[in-house]
Amino acid sequence: MGVVQKYGGSSVATIEQLRAVAECVAQVKRAGQDVVVVASAMGKTTNRLIELAKQTGGADSVREMDALMATGEQTTISLLAMALQGMGIPAVSLTGGQCGFVTNDNHTRAKIMDIRTDTLQKHIGEGKVVVVAGFQGTDAAGNITTLGRGGSDTTAVALAAKLGWDCEIYTDVEGIFSIDPRRCPGAKALRRITYDEMMEMAALGAGVLETRSVELAKKYRVRLYLGRSLENDKTKGTYIMEKDNTFEYMPVTGISLSERCAVLNITNAPADGSCVSSLFAIVSKLDINVDLISQQLLSDGSIALSFSCKPDDAQLLLRACAERGFPYELRLQSTLGKISLVGVGMITHSGIANRAFDTLYRNGIRYYQISTSEISISITVEGENLERAARLLSEEFELCQGA
Amino acid sequence: MGVVQKYGGSSVATIEQLRAVAECVAQVKRAGQDVVVVASAMGKTTNRLIELAKQTGGADSVREMDALMATGEQTTISLLAMALQGMGIPAVSLTGGQCGFVTNDNHTRAKIMDIRTDTLQKHIGEGKVVVVAGFQGTDAAGNITTLGRGGSDTTAVALAAKLGWDCEIYTDVEGIFSIDPRRCPGAKALRRITYDEMMEMAALGAGVLETRSVELAKKYRVRLYLGRSLENDKTKGTYIMEKDNTFEYMPVTGISLSERCAVLNITNAPADGSCVSSLFAIVSKLDINVDLISQQLLSDGSIALSFSCKPDDAQLLLRACAERGFPYELRLQSTLGKISLVGVGMITHSGIANRAFDTLYRNGIRYYQISTSEISISITVEGENLERAARLLSEEFELCQGA
Repeated sequence: MGVVQKYGGSSVATIEQLRAVAECVAQVKRAGQDVVVVASAMGKTTNRLIELAKQTGGADSVREMDALMATGEQTTISLLAMALQGMGIPAVSLTGGQCGFVTNDNHTRAKIMDIRTDTLQKHIGEGKVVVVAGFQGTDAAGNITTLGRGGSDTTAVALAAKLGWDCEIYTDVEGIFSIDPRRCPGAKALRRITYDEMMEMAALGAGVLETRSVELAKKYRVRLYLGRSLENDKTKGTYIMEKDNTFEYMPVTGISLSERCAVLNITNAPADGSCVSSLFAIVSKLDINVDLISQQLLSDGSIALSFSCKPDDAQLLLRACAERGFPYELRLQSTLGKISLVGVGMITHSGIANRAFDTLYRNGIRYYQISTSEISISITVEGENLERAARLLSEEFELCQGA
Repeated sequence: MGVVQKYGGSSVATIEQLRAVAECVAQVKRAGQDVVVVASAMGKTTNRLIELAKQTGGADSVREMDALMATGEQTTISLLAMALQGMGIPAVSLTGGQCGFVTNDNHTRAKIMDIRTDTLQKHIGEGKVVVVAGFQGTDAAGNITTLGRGGSDTTAVALAAKLGWDCEIYTDVEGIFSIDPRRCPGAKALRRITYDEMMEMAALGAGVLETRSVELAKKYRVRLYLGRSLENDKTKGTYIMEKDNTFEYMPVTGISLSERCAVLNITNAPADGSCVSSLFAIVSKLDINVDLISQQLLSDGSIALSFSCKPDDAQLLLRACAERGFPYELRLQSTLGKISLVGVGMITHSGIANRAFDTLYRNGIRYYQISTSEISISITVEGENLERAARLLSEEFELCQGA
């Protein structure tokens, strides 16, 4: 039994940090556990490479972009393997391709098709720490591909799934917080969170772990741990795992905020569906992601429709509707923010929505669109009320230590 | 028919230079010729990577060093392919491994065992400029290897040999000079030089092209051209080719100098060979390269032996001889320099050695060891006389334009 540890770019930005990471890995290895390390490009390397690419005048070549980006991780893994060897730990670096990551040929956002672990297993069997380049693979023709930004998490989880090991993701934050501690000092770091909660939080903008890697962890039941790099105390970070009954789940586990949220409204549309279907034909053509869609039949027999999207996309859509002579008026609310409450406990704790609405009402905060799933409630409020609403709700649901 | 062009690190040190190189390549391609470009790491990248490696404390891991170094060329080739695409030229980058360079597993100085050109040929067939990472390959197990410094020349020549194309090596010098122009202003750039002359010049310290790449060019009859990067006028650089009869060869084509040359002398050794064989057993154990070996039978029946090597190696050898109780005295001359005259014309022009000795004698320059091959004469002189001797000899053999 071993562990896959993933270290992000900010954890390996300098040689000193890289050596400190190597020392942590060495400790685990010396304690008798097998370790596979997944590493990202050092610090700002990826941004630097993108800048160089832009200057060539041919940065839209996705195949070459992938070949270029892949050098970032390759640099980290060879240096990290050297640092480990310098500490007397047998170690070997493997690029995505060498580690057997076969992807499709969708450059810059390739999907993993297979992991051929013969080489990896051979090195593990020989007692080596294997240091794998995150975020990359090769397609069937041998071209270098990348999984897209944040893809190193996916690399780590996929390897853990394949090996049947646990996966530890080390970053520059302590763990998953119930609410962004910069907005709400005293926010609690969660001891554990379920895959589903984490996916809601990630998709709704919490931004610590890529949704795709959590999905993968859920699918293959990989126990994930997220913690601060170089912090050995595992009681400080967050475990992401299946819901179990040994743990009392809070009704709301976390709150995530999305500051820039535009809402478009249509009223007086006919109830026959023609308006909605012609509108969403345009939306889909523009490849715009919308959420919080709600539709109501009004007493006069007409339809009221509203949905949210990014402000830039809203402008794009308004222009496209005007050009194509879309016959209904779209009203834009561009100053809204979105608050999402997430928690598997919602299923068993009733009245969460009611408590949330009541809290906002008692404090004079007006709210607009509402959307719910089994484990989440999202509400839009005026942007200027967003922070205060978040603080009030986190007090109501006891997410802040100071509350 | 196409051409393999190789661009060294100083020709691609910045994105501006890289775009200028791409423009040159684009011109050749637009004129209807197929092009394979071999590129080195940008500017000082290799030195920077070596410095990082040293800081890890594990830089003696040759496998990881190779994986690290290989990122240098991979960066250049993807950026160069982008620049070409930005100019509307179809282009694709290939790492050493992707281009089919299979090497042995002698990391940091691997030898090419095979080049599997399927992928290369496919891209050429599709009309693309293929940009290949110089200096690298993979071993049979898929580990990244490098051919050692200067190995990009070898990559280019090996590809030209395999494709049956000409090979153009672009550097920051105008061509091959008869003598280092920094020492002898007015030195002539050669229009052509034979493989054998070039090898003598390279091995004797001229340092423009790696001997190994010239050897390979000679073996596969690859016509080499060496010129300044971005200089289109091919009458300015030097062709390196087989000797032919359409050209009047000068008696001496070039003079190369070696400043730091130590000479060791033994006198009064027995003529039975015991002294020489026990001495050279030590030399070989220490892996020391010696040249200018000469041995003479003196009138008293004893042997006088002398040979030259690097000053550091001389010290190493003196210590080893003392430790092992080598019974003959080794006298060291450590202040010598070596001058080598090279030219295929020597075979047909007699009296070259005589003219050289006479020139030195007339000018009061004492000389010591002498060694000759079919196309070269090497002479040691006091280091302080080296420059003057070189100037006098280049005047004597008309190698300077001002002479």
